Amino acid sequence: MHIDGHTGLIAHIGFPTHTFKSPLIYNPYFESAGINALVVPMGCRPAHFPALLRSFFALENAVGALITMPHKVTTLELLDEASVAVQVAGSCNAVRRDADGRLVGDMFDGEGFVRGLRRKGLPLPGARALVVGCGGVGCAIAASLAGAGVGTLALFDPRTASAEALATRLRQHHPALQVWVGSKDPQGFDLVVNATPLGMNADDPLPLDVDRLSPGSFVGEVVMKAEMTPLLEAARARGCTVQVGTDMLFEQIPAYLSFFGLPTTTPEVLRAGARLAG
Amino acid sequence: MHIDGHTGLIAHIGFPTHTFKSPLIYNPYFESAGINALVVPMGCRPAHFPALLRSFFALENAVGALITMPHKVTTLELLDEASVAVQVAGSCNAVRRDADGRLVGDMFDGEGFVRGLRRKGLPLPGARALVVGCGGVGCAIAASLAGAGVGTLALFDPRTASAEALATRLRQHHPALQVWVGSKDPQGFDLVVNATPLGMNADDPLPLDVDRLSPGSFVGEVVMKAEMTPLLEAARARGCTVQVGTDMLFEQIPAYLSFFGLPTTTPEVLRAGARLAG
Repeated sequence: MHIDGHTGLIAHIGFPTHTFKSPLIYNPYFESAGINALVVPMGCRPAHFPALLRSFFALENAVGALITMPHKVTTLELLDEASVAVQVAGSCNAVRRDADGRLVGDMFDGEGFVRGLRRKGLPLPGARALVVGCGGVGCAIAASLAGAGVGTLALFDPRTASAEALATRLRQHHPALQVWVGSKDPQGFDLVVNATPLGMNADDPLPLDVDRLSPGSFVGEVVMKAEMTPLLEAARARGCTVQVGTDMLFEQIPAYLSFFGLPTTTPEVLRAGARLAG
Repeated sequence: MHIDGHTGLIAHIGFPTHTFKSPLIYNPYFESAGINALVVPMGCRPAHFPALLRSFFALENAVGALITMPHKVTTLELLDEASVAVQVAGSCNAVRRDADGRLVGDMFDGEGFVRGLRRKGLPLPGARALVVGCGGVGCAIAASLAGAGVGTLALFDPRTASAEALATRLRQHHPALQVWVGSKDPQGFDLVVNATPLGMNADDPLPLDVDRLSPGSFVGEVVMKAEMTPLLEAARARGCTVQVGTDMLFEQIPAYLSFFGLPTTTPEVLRAGARLAG
């Protein structure tokens, strides 16, 4: 890559950093597209994060920040402006500085998931969706599904308070949405989402009862460890359409690029150029 | 370059950044040598510098910082430990974090200049040197010449107070050194250094009276705009040995690399790999 005194910086802030994928996707794209920008991995512990974010955005060549674990929630307190997705999700993974120097935050995990669904032809307005797992990524997906106009959103989390808190935020920002809490029975849903980590380890149980999946359902996954998780294998065997975990990652990058004011591209170009094996 | 979650960061902090050369030298070297480190240009205005430096060194993957204009002097207040070169020069261009998290500073502008002289065969212990210009770079060169054991150091600056202040610091840290202030007559010196900006513009006067240069003198230059400045041309015409301005830049990088604990190399390798035309 050509890095010089005109290079714009995108801070990729999290801790630990060893599993970071974004530098391996964005930087090859910037290089191939001739964009003078650079994703810089920054390993930052929680105590240092607020000061780092402010200092970074005081730089003349700061373009934006990709926020990841464990900072997605604490970022909210540092923003001057938060998108509805951020407010509903309760977390933020994208920050930029506007023309007045204010910090503006958005959340693209759910947006990436939803873009993937749309491109696979799933009609979202009025759809009935079940989200199993209401941690950070589940909240983000629920927020974006609500933003995309689903009619019914069923939420399940073994920690019922997490699901209830998400339901309250959803009802506040999306009063027309039907929100249910408490069951993970997938029968009859147009869309079923695993937003739990179940599937990362070989001996994990399935996140939901696959025998109850309706054959016409669409099943999406957030686990990225393998392309086809046991859940997706089972869903496909029942005739469901599926979305793999890494789609959420690659589909959200064009949204990030637009948010940062950079020339954007397609998930296919990003996948083809990514150096994830490196 | 391969940038991932294990990449070590070297912040290159200054303002403005558009003339930065270091990313164009270090990063190609890191790439060719397989060193997972990255020089990141950071455009930082003075008001934001102290907070940025602290935040940067709180990062888990911070390796070091290259400090440039306008922060080389203010860095001193932020250090826990300063080398003798920093104390004499009154400025700092290299910072790292030690094992206890303390910020340690050094100054390599003068070191680069002195390494260049040594490699050209100039014996420095006991030598008589004249430094014309006692701004930041002149102070740094004087500090390193003193550290290298010159016997006599003559200082000149049209702002006499600058030369006097430098002389005071030199006498404090190098009591055996003879320090003279006030003349820029180059006659009889083993080494004559232009540390003024004269030579950057086509219509600049010469920084000193070249007719008074002794033919056996060594003449060094800090101006990098052209390899052979009018001073160096005139000095060479009189039979002097010369050192061009960019030697200071390339000769100091191996010192920086060692300071940062990275595998080091030669100025020749760095010059050959640099993408300064890019």
